[in-house]
Amino acid sequence: MTRPSVRVRRAVAGDEREILRMIVALATFERAGEAVEATEESLAALMFGDDPNVFADIAEVDGRAVGLAVWFLNFSTWTGRHGVYLEDLFVDPDARRQGVAQALFGALAQEAARRGCARIDCAVLDWNRSAMDFYESLGARRSEGWQPWRLDGAALAALAAG
Amino acid sequence: MTRPSVRVRRAVAGDEREILRMIVALATFERAGEAVEATEESLAALMFGDDPNVFADIAEVDGRAVGLAVWFLNFSTWTGRHGVYLEDLFVDPDARRQGVAQALFGALAQEAARRGCARIDCAVLDWNRSAMDFYESLGARRSEGWQPWRLDGAALAALAAG
Repeated sequence: MTRPSVRVRRAVAGDEREILRMIVALATFERAGEAVEATEESLAALMFGDDPNVFADIAEVDGRAVGLAVWFLNFSTWTGRHGVYLEDLFVDPDARRQGVAQALFGALAQEAARRGCARIDCAVLDWNRSAMDFYESLGARRSEGWQPWRLDGAALAALAAG
Repeated sequence: MTRPSVRVRRAVAGDEREILRMIVALATFERAGEAVEATEESLAALMFGDDPNVFADIAEVDGRAVGLAVWFLNFSTWTGRHGVYLEDLFVDPDARRQGVAQALFGALAQEAARRGCARIDCAVLDWNRSAMDFYESLGARRSEGWQPWRLDGAALAALAAG
């Protein structure tokens, strides 16, 4: 069996339906499908408006969207440079083991190099061994010692109200 | 003794020297002072150029810069909205216990509310109990279950080269 060819392209207006489909599919895998408040409209406004700062890459096999990377630029005070933050990486279950995730990550590495970024960062759920194995196979490592913290909801609103 | 008044203002061109000073001071506290590659020039270019997407707030007491918050906008596919990512929060040792960090965080919460952001995220070193206590006092919580991962250096360059 020959391996199907994977094409990675930057998402454009009109892709928001497929993007949302894959965001929900990933969140469902992450046991949080109901957590997705994003809509096709909110995604299109942020990704396809003037001067967007949220980006999506779509992987296609035989012209069908089967993979998604959503990313934005972060910043490190240590490097003094932008980096790439990979917010979502997803491949449809029936399109796995064909190099789709590798193609998406490779395109992202090229984009990072083009922009002079020193790093690609992401977050992995601590039970998602297949994601860790994939990132390790690329040479990524866990950022040991750092804990993510968050302020949201009523606590954030109360602080904003002063 | 009366508490000195703390003023928080957005950093402007010319502040890059004080910003770098506090970035290095924080990195030194984080046992990584030698990790700072940022320069006054790189900070000024990213923070004070046209249409910047990296921001700094400076806290002053008696007209002296004693605290720093460096932040940018991130994005969540779940909320479908931007959030605020707090990259650095620092207060000079001789200006602590006067509400400087609270004033910086409060200003950031107001900025987040103004921009319709649902969250403020940050990362804490796992031995930095005083930072955790501070964030907990504001109502922030550790994002349990998520691990930060990173690809950089030779592995990133190799992937970009294809």
